[in-house]
This record gives sequence, structure tokens and C-alpha cells, in this order.
Amino acid sequence: MTWTRHDILDVDDWSREEFEQVLETAAAMGEILGRPIRRTPALRSKTVVLFFAEASTRTRVSFELAARALSADVVNISVSGSSVEKGESLLDSVRTLQALGGDVIVLRHSSSGAPYFVADRVDAAVVNAGDGWHAHPTQALLDAFTLRARLGSLSNKRIAIVGDILHSRVARSNIHALRALGAEVVLCGPPTLIPAAWRCGAVPAGVRVELDLDRALLHADAVMVLRLQRERMAAGLLPSLREYARVWGVTEARLARAAPTAPVLHPGPMNEGVEIDAAVAHGPRSVIEEQVANGVAVRMAILYLLAGTEAGA
Amino acid sequence: MTWTRHDILDVDDWSREEFEQVLETAAAMGEILGRPIRRTPALRSKTVVLFFAEASTRTRVSFELAARALSADVVNISVSGSSVEKGESLLDSVRTLQALGGDVIVLRHSSSGAPYFVADRVDAAVVNAGDGWHAHPTQALLDAFTLRARLGSLSNKRIAIVGDILHSRVARSNIHALRALGAEVVLCGPPTLIPAAWRCGAVPAGVRVELDLDRALLHADAVMVLRLQRERMAAGLLPSLREYARVWGVTEARLARAAPTAPVLHPGPMNEGVEIDAAVAHGPRSVIEEQVANGVAVRMAILYLLAGTEAGA
Amino acid sequence: MTWTRHDILDVDDWSREEFEQVLETAAAMGEILGRPIRRTPALRSKTVVLFFAEASTRTRVSFELAARALSADVVNISVSGSSVEKGESLLDSVRTLQALGGDVIVLRHSSSGAPYFVADRVDAAVVNAGDGWHAHPTQALLDAFTLRARLGSLSNKRIAIVGDILHSRVARSNIHALRALGAEVVLCGPPTLIPAAWRCGAVPAGVRVELDLDRALLHADAVMVLRLQRERMAAGLLPSLREYARVWGVTEARLARAAPTAPVLHPGPMNEGVEIDAAVAHGPRSVIEEQVANGVAVRMAILYLLAGTEAGA
Repeated sequence: MTWTRHDILDVDDWSREEFEQVLETAAAMGEILGRPIRRTPALRSKTVVLFFAEASTRTRVSFELAARALSADVVNISVSGSSVEKGESLLDSVRTLQALGGDVIVLRHSSSGAPYFVADRVDAAVVNAGDGWHAHPTQALLDAFTLRARLGSLSNKRIAIVGDILHSRVARSNIHALRALGAEVVLCGPPTLIPAAWRCGAVPAGVRVELDLDRALLHADAVMVLRLQRERMAAGLLPSLREYARVWGVTEARLARAAPTAPVLHPGPMNEGVEIDAAVAHGPRSVIEEQVANGVAVRMAILYLLAGTEAGA
Repeated sequence: MTWTRHDILDVDDWSREEFEQVLETAAAMGEILGRPIRRTPALRSKTVVLFFAEASTRTRVSFELAARALSADVVNISVSGSSVEKGESLLDSVRTLQALGGDVIVLRHSSSGAPYFVADRVDAAVVNAGDGWHAHPTQALLDAFTLRARLGSLSNKRIAIVGDILHSRVARSNIHALRALGAEVVLCGPPTLIPAAWRCGAVPAGVRVELDLDRALLHADAVMVLRLQRERMAAGLLPSLREYARVWGVTEARLARAAPTAPVLHPGPMNEGVEIDAAVAHGPRSVIEEQVANGVAVRMAILYLLAGTEAGA
Repeated sequence: MTWTRHDILDVDDWSREEFEQVLETAAAMGEILGRPIRRTPALRSKTVVLFFAEASTRTRVSFELAARALSADVVNISVSGSSVEKGESLLDSVRTLQALGGDVIVLRHSSSGAPYFVADRVDAAVVNAGDGWHAHPTQALLDAFTLRARLGSLSNKRIAIVGDILHSRVARSNIHALRALGAEVVLCGPPTLIPAAWRCGAVPAGVRVELDLDRALLHADAVMVLRLQRERMAAGLLPSLREYARVWGVTEARLARAAPTAPVLHPGPMNEGVEIDAAVAHGPRSVIEEQVANGVAVRMAILYLLAGTEAGA
């Protein structure tokens, strides 16, 4: 299959074949990363611009290592300051990026939709590295890659996603990816942190909402724990961290209800003792470090499909 | 002609031949940027240090792309903090840079004259990427390159520069470049933002001050609009943004007095609706994105003339 | 001799042979830096992560130039923010770094012991680029390299170290290096800035404490001046800068007691007029710029010994 998308903005309209193609390419990239010389010339003399208007060491470094392993040049642009300043500068920055002529722009932005805005105005391929509450497609792809490495096919596998579903771009993108790959998704979290329509039963096919954590974990083939943003407390959506940990925190004891070898994922950084117990985070079920390592391979695959021209990979 | 300057600190004493040489070299670099593989080995194993003591994503990225297209190594140094801290650290930084042995130091600094201070103390070639209100030579060169691409020879062409002439390093450097290339320069802006001696008629040959915008634009072959620094308002030099836009803002209607195809330039970032109307900024006369693209070629030419050793370009 | 250490965390347990091996390797690296093409492919396709959780342009750039001269890829990670935020993120960052798979992690951190914490948890080689008050091994190595270039063998040479011994990681690491290389060390500074046990005579073999500066400098073969951290004043450990300069400042007049050609070292950045007089800092005895230049060669040697695999150097 030939890759036809110009940008990676979301995965909500991807076909199963598109997911499969990225995951297979990522497997090939993973082999390159396992060699003594972890490098391929596939993107030689291409420029990848990492435009991060929201702090994220983890995702930025992952993309930077991926781009370098493909022999691309990397230009880092970090924009800090208030959201108003960011809003003003995005249009200006976009015009500059267009004129400067990078080949791929990887964009992290606090405003949902910002990557669409940019993609409309530049010739470069745009990769969404997380936009507001909206989408985080490369995280969903690396999660799917990690799950497949453990579970094989995801068809009819039951994946529980636990935490702040409402504000999570990770959850949003994962739901699309998991459903396209045939999995059944169980969403679990405080009622205030689940979209109202879903809470009332209007969920997409293959998705189920389960407010009780013990029932959500029952027979789960994998558990994905989301990071709790502490500002939800200030917004009155949660009573306290202690209460959250007691009711929604994923512990070894509660995981007894899941499949015996069910892997536990977390997009990081973790609030240990809040949404996930330390014993789980660092226990035998945890695949959290595998997620990070797989992230480089998946991002190599994305960059290669968007900008690769040589047979070098 | 052989290039003989060791540093690029200002263009105020350049000969016409020197301008021509940079512009011709930039044209050759522009061809390299138009190839599928945008790269030449001319600066392989050379180190270009980008020392930015004042924020500037646009100029920094332009130099970084230029250096990489020449296969140079790039080291980024950003210094933030108060001006006092900067003042203290410049001497110290300079000694460190000297000892570390980069080949070219590109310096942006808020103090006028800082690049001279550095050039006196290091062996590396120094490029001024903007110092206080003093000079911005690579901006003037990219503006001249952009104008020549549109107008051909600049001899006897009339170029209007509109805005805060007093505090603008862009204006200062452009006046030198344009006069050396044979153009006639018309300066226009609020009386409080024009140097007093010039306002009273003591202008250099080939330069005219015109306080009325309509008269300044009459038969202009090109219009260069300067960014209004909003802190001028706080300093009492201007009544209000609204008033500035009404009297000095460049609009489509007012441009009717200029030559029919007169290009409009702006060094960016723009205050749309203040010094330039959005319809002008994004209209058919605007060459603002060309300026950015040309900036990479011009900076390649500068780096190549200062540090290039191979016949690779 | 084959290099056997996996990490460079401190030099307190190094053998004389280990010091010799680094210094000899650094000499070879210095030759590479003196060539027109300052580059060797020894670390091609290796990734060096510069993780700086404390500001340091000088040391970071030195490591970056060293890594590039060895053809390694460089990934910069700067962490700012309060020490609490840093403390929280270090464990998380470490796990990420481990999963991402860099080959060498160069770590600067404000907490003493942080590099040990990291080295315990990653496969990559860890280089301590300064941790709190604890150690700064590459500074000690470049100081030893600089001293040997001037003095030849350090056996029985008398090296005076002047200033805030108590809080100085530079002093601490230098004492180990100098003693291992056979030198005699004289420590001098205000009683409040010398460790209490040492002040009372319980010093290691080969080390002497001398509270009087004139006596400390007498017949010294080299003088190492430490930077005075101004926050010592706020802590009540010193009466005033003026008083410190009068009693402990190293001037030309006081240096008359040292050996006639005794070199003067300073790790930078200097407080000229406080711990060191400007005439000394920039006079014929000063080897301060040599220290910076030698720093690149020494760091190349360290990176090469830890990660080099090719015969290219």
C-alpha cells in the first residue's frame, strides 16, 4: 500500500489499513534501532522542525531521536509565554515556517485545532504532537504498537482506559485507534470527567462506559491509566487527590480482576500514588518504559512515511 | 573579486562591489535551496555558534537553516535575563567562545555595538544579527536581494521606508545598502520617530525625509514598512495605536499613489492593522514571505564568504 | 591499558593510571582539534544527551563541541524551574532517558549525588558535569591537563587552591586529582569556608590548610582561584565583598611570593576585583582561556573512552 496522507493531524478517520501500515513500518524502524549503528539515511538533507509551543521534554526528545536516526536535520523552536502571546505568534510563525521551507513540522500546541490551522497554510507535512484536549495521534500509535507487541492482534481484546477521559487527547486518539484495530474499549473515571453524552449511553460502537473501576477492570486484556491533571481539583471537578486515589487509583489488588498478564500503560509523566500505585508502575505488568522506547520507532515510521524518499530504510 | 572582510558588523562602509558580491553569491545559494537535496558541503566540520542574547526565533532559525544547508555544525546559545546580567556575561561569554574556537559567531544583542566588542576579542568571524538600535546587516542584504529580484537594478529606483526610523536598526542598515546600490530613499514617519538632524534637512545624499505619507508613497518603486514597537507609546512618542494607524498605516488605498506593481516589504513580525493593513500584508504586492525565504540564501552567502574553504558550493 | 569504568561520577577513587590515561587521550584529542578539519568519526551514530538541570552555558557548550568533534549526535535537554520541580522530574526523566536509549548522558544537577541516582537506573554511560557541592570531575581533569602542559609532571609540585573550599565541587574534585598525580595541595580561604575537620588539622595526606594567603602562596607552583558565590554573604559566612577582596583576593603583588612563572587558574565565570584581580585574570600568568580550550579536548577523551568503538580517533 502506498501512503497517501500529507499530514498526521488526527487518527479519527484512519482506516485499519493505515494503522497497520504505520505499525508495520514502525516494526522495521525498531529493527534499525536495535542495530549497533542505529541510523538510516532515509531523510538525509531533509529538515524536521520541532515546534513546541507547550513544554514536553519527553515527546520532543522522542521526535528528535527519531529524526536523527533517519539522518534528518532537526531545528528546535520552543515558544513560551502566555496563551495570548502564543495565539498572536502562531499565524506569524506559520508564515515564517512556510517561507523557510522545512520538510516536516512537528507541532505541539495548547490550542485544540492548531495543527489544522498550520497545515492549511504550509507546504510542509504537519505532524500533530498533541493539541489541547483534541488529539495526540503518535501517542495512540505507540500505545497500539506496544499493545500488539504484548497481545498480538487486538481483535476482540478488551482495553480499559481509566481516568480523566473528558480532557484527555490521549484517550480520544486511543479510542479511535483501538476501535479501528478491532478492540473493545471500556472507559472508566469520575462522572465529572466523562463526556456527558457518553455517560448517558450515546457511545460509539465498540465502546462502553463503566463508572465502577472494579467492573471496568474485570477481564480487561490491558489497562491504560491516564495522567490526572491537578488543575481539575481547582476547577471543582474532583473532591481531593486522596479521594481520587481511593476510588480510581489503579492498584495491584484491583488489577486482580483483569486478565493475569494484562499489561498496564501510562502516557507519562505519572502521579504515582494518585492515578497509579508505585507497585503497579514499576511492577511486572508495567510496559511504560516500552511505550517510551516504542515511541521513537513509531515516530520514525511517521516521519519516514511523510518525507522519506530513499530506499535506505 | 576576493572577499576580504573578516566580520559582518555593519554595512555602513561597504562598497557597491561588496554588496554585489554578496547578492550574487546569495543567488547561487538560492539555486542550491531549490534543488531536491538542499545541501552543499562548503562548511563541513566548521562550527557556527548562534549566540542570541535577545529573543528572535525568525532570525535564529534562518541562520540555523543556512548553516545546515552548508553542512556546518550549529551550536545554539541563548542568554536570557535582565540587561545587567547580560552585560556582565558578555565579556565572560566572549572569552569562553574564543577559547572554545567556533569558526563563525552569529550575535544578536540588545546593546548597540556589542558585535564590535566581541569581534575585537575573538578569532572567529563575527556576524551581527541585530544589535540594539544600531544595525541589522543581513536584514538589509535580504531586503536588497528581494528588491532586485522584483525590480532588477536599483539604480534611481525610489524606495519609501515608513515608520519608526529613529529606533530601527533595519532602517539604518537599509539606508546604507540602498544608497550604495544607487537607489533614492524616502523616509517617512511621525516627527518624533525621525532623527532630529534628518528632520531638519541634514540628510545624506540620496535620502529625503517626507512627513506626509501620501507624498512619500507618490511614485515609490517599493515600500518598506517598519514594525512599530509598542513601547514607543508608553514613552510618550505617539498618541495612540489608532492614531498611528490612521496617519501612518499603509493601506491599499494609499498605495494607489505608488508605482502600480511596487512591492511591499516588512521585516516582521507585523502588527497588522497598525503599521500595515492586512489586505496589504497578504495582498499581491506583498513580498514578505519572499523576504523570509531569501533570508536563508543571503545568510548562506554570508557564512560561505566568511568561512567557506571548499569548492563545494 | 583498557578503560574499564562505565561512568564518570567522581574522581575520588581513581588510580594514577586512570588519570594518566584520560590525560594522554586528551592530548591526542587536542591534536585533532588543531587540524583544519577538527573531526573524527569515533562516535558516529552515537547519541550524547546533555541533560542540564542547572544553567551552565560554558560547560554545556564544551561538551557539545566535544561530542560533535567526535561525530556524535547531540540532544539538549534543559530543565528549569524550582528545585522541587526538578526533584520530582529527575526520576521521571531518568526512566524516559533509559527507554529512549542514548549512549552517554552528561548530567549537570544542583543536587549532590544526582548522577549516582541516574547511573543506577540507566544503561547509558553517565558523566557528572557538576552535582551540587559534590564533584565536578571533568573540571578537575581539564585543570590537571592545563597544569601538566605548563609544569610537566605534577610530582611534588605545590598547588594552592584559594577561596570557598567548603562549597566547591571544583576544589573537591581537584584535591583528588592533584594528590593522585603526586602534587602537594595547599588550601586557603576564610575559616568559615573551609570544612571544619580540615581546619582542625584532620586533612588527607598531601593536603595542608593555610589560613593566611601570603603563606599559602609562598613557593606555590600554581594557583587555583575559586569563584566566590555571592550568596555566601547573605548566609552570614562573609562580612562583605570588599573585605573578602582585601584579605583573600589574588593580586599581582601577592603572587610575588609564588614561583615566578606559576600559572593562575580559575574555573570561571570570574568575579573580577573580588576573588581575582583583573590584572591577574588577564595577565601573563593566567591560563584561564587555556583551561576552556583544554576542556573540549578532555571532554572528547572522556566521551571517547566511554563510548568510542571505532579506530577513527
